[in-house]
Amino acid sequence: MNKVILLANRPVGKPAASDFKFEDIVMPSPKDGEVLLKTTYVSVDPYLRGRMSDAKSYVAPFELNKPMSSAIIAEVTESENPDFKVGDYITAGLEWKLFQTSNGKGLSKVDPSVSLTAYLGALGMTGLTALMGLQEIGKPKSGETLVVSGAAGAVGSIVGQIGKIMGCRVIGIAGSDEKVAALKSKFGFDEAINYKTTENMQEAVAAAAPDGVDIYFDNVGGDISDAVIFNMNKYGRIAICGTISSYNDTEASKGPRLQPYILKNSMLMQGFIVSNYANKFPEGVKQLSAWLKAGKLQYSETIVNGFDQIPQAFMDLFEGKNDGKMVVKI
Amino acid sequence: MNKVILLANRPVGKPAASDFKFEDIVMPSPKDGEVLLKTTYVSVDPYLRGRMSDAKSYVAPFELNKPMSSAIIAEVTESENPDFKVGDYITAGLEWKLFQTSNGKGLSKVDPSVSLTAYLGALGMTGLTALMGLQEIGKPKSGETLVVSGAAGAVGSIVGQIGKIMGCRVIGIAGSDEKVAALKSKFGFDEAINYKTTENMQEAVAAAAPDGVDIYFDNVGGDISDAVIFNMNKYGRIAICGTISSYNDTEASKGPRLQPYILKNSMLMQGFIVSNYANKFPEGVKQLSAWLKAGKLQYSETIVNGFDQIPQAFMDLFEGKNDGKMVVKI
Repeated sequence: MNKVILLANRPVGKPAASDFKFEDIVMPSPKDGEVLLKTTYVSVDPYLRGRMSDAKSYVAPFELNKPMSSAIIAEVTESENPDFKVGDYITAGLEWKLFQTSNGKGLSKVDPSVSLTAYLGALGMTGLTALMGLQEIGKPKSGETLVVSGAAGAVGSIVGQIGKIMGCRVIGIAGSDEKVAALKSKFGFDEAINYKTTENMQEAVAAAAPDGVDIYFDNVGGDISDAVIFNMNKYGRIAICGTISSYNDTEASKGPRLQPYILKNSMLMQGFIVSNYANKFPEGVKQLSAWLKAGKLQYSETIVNGFDQIPQAFMDLFEGKNDGKMVVKI
Repeated sequence: MNKVILLANRPVGKPAASDFKFEDIVMPSPKDGEVLLKTTYVSVDPYLRGRMSDAKSYVAPFELNKPMSSAIIAEVTESENPDFKVGDYITAGLEWKLFQTSNGKGLSKVDPSVSLTAYLGALGMTGLTALMGLQEIGKPKSGETLVVSGAAGAVGSIVGQIGKIMGCRVIGIAGSDEKVAALKSKFGFDEAINYKTTENMQEAVAAAAPDGVDIYFDNVGGDISDAVIFNMNKYGRIAICGTISSYNDTEASKGPRLQPYILKNSMLMQGFIVSNYANKFPEGVKQLSAWLKAGKLQYSETIVNGFDQIPQAFMDLFEGKNDGKMVVKI
């Protein structure tokens, strides 16, 4: 028996159960060169909401009455492809189906002795985003000071931990006392600032970073970022990973012009998406796995059970019901 | 008879004649190991404005009631140093004096048969600034589109020519019809825009750069830069060399926040001063000399006469009265 989840309607506002449709489909058989994949874990992520709309974007929208898809962990249950054997686990962007075939292209083998779900989080796009942005743009050196905004998020919490591994003083910025407490106790940040209860962020960053800021991993933009940037040192590096403060803006917001500061300190500011560094993923996953096995990377995840629960788990993301990465176990 | 120009006041806004003070001083005599230098040409440059303030910056500020200084060409008129003989010409960062002594450290001999003033321009910091910023940050590839602001300035006109040598489509932005005409006829730019007579700069840049902008060499900052940046392509590079539009600001000006654009296009923005790349100067001067001798680099200079005219020549920079490198002949 096989099943698929299709996009039934393009949501208006928050996605609803009626936007998804379950269908029974035939069990496929792998042809020569193909494998049969049994879905094990499905990642549900906020960015999928964008793909459910047909507005112009950098990723193609899902098509109506076609399968939804996301990052998935699957087990190889039949193989006509010499590169994969029965019992292998792989991760890839796959359709929301119980079973599907693949010619093997784009499948990455994963090591089940680590943690399968980690490949959807700390060892997946989340961890790679943290590592690539920090490593390729931030270029941390031991003894430098790193500030992370959106620090309690899935990416931010890993950025800070990698910064600690690399010998940096790490300061996190987050939006609640609980998050600030977790940054220090669970994720090992040196300092954490609750921007919602801090009147003068520029002074707070200065106090937390007595030697100035060398690297800023930015998930938010806006006033918080200004406060960090005005504390940066010569040759400071800013990796722009997100600008969540502007996502709901209807027109470009204004702020102090940064070029004079960037010039004065010979600073670098660079935006990125993780796929820019696709050629470094294998090496990156290896590094992240090593840290994870050594107990150096902590992460949170919420695991929901059952293929039928995928739409609900996705909708729950927008109610903040997850703690860390949201994953559905099949 | 000897004279010096001191910093009398830290300017508020644009520098004024009253910010400078002339004094008669004694004629120095070289001690053992020293040379007596007679100033021949004095370079005046926008960046000196920054050093007249005491705000934290990349170069130490000038001290009040102490001599101003800049790049100077001087003739050795007495020598107690075996490395220099009377009649040698040298260039160095020196004080604004008719005569001064030096122990020889930091003096570079120049070849008067080329052109003395070239060592303050195309073969000096000006040419190196253009080459280093474009090469190290802009990283031009043949077929890409380069936009240069302050294009008729000493640095800008060389940037554009190097861009052409490297196979780019080059667009210059300048502030008069004469400058725009010179960019195309003398310096070989493909397109040039007079920002003072252009109502919608963003549309004008779009029209001049039908394939979008890959590299922006920025000498000005402000609205002009916004107009260029909003036309940039994925992986665009912005080299910030100057922000002359803000040099005389008494408070930080505001503009649209750029981070969302920098993120969306995985762009890079980097500030620099030429001394960041000091280890590449010998190679750079060799390259610039080769282009100059091959007739591939044209440069303009505005030569003003008289030691007493140094402050006025400097102030005229902010009124755009120079055509290319501004030099004072003593």
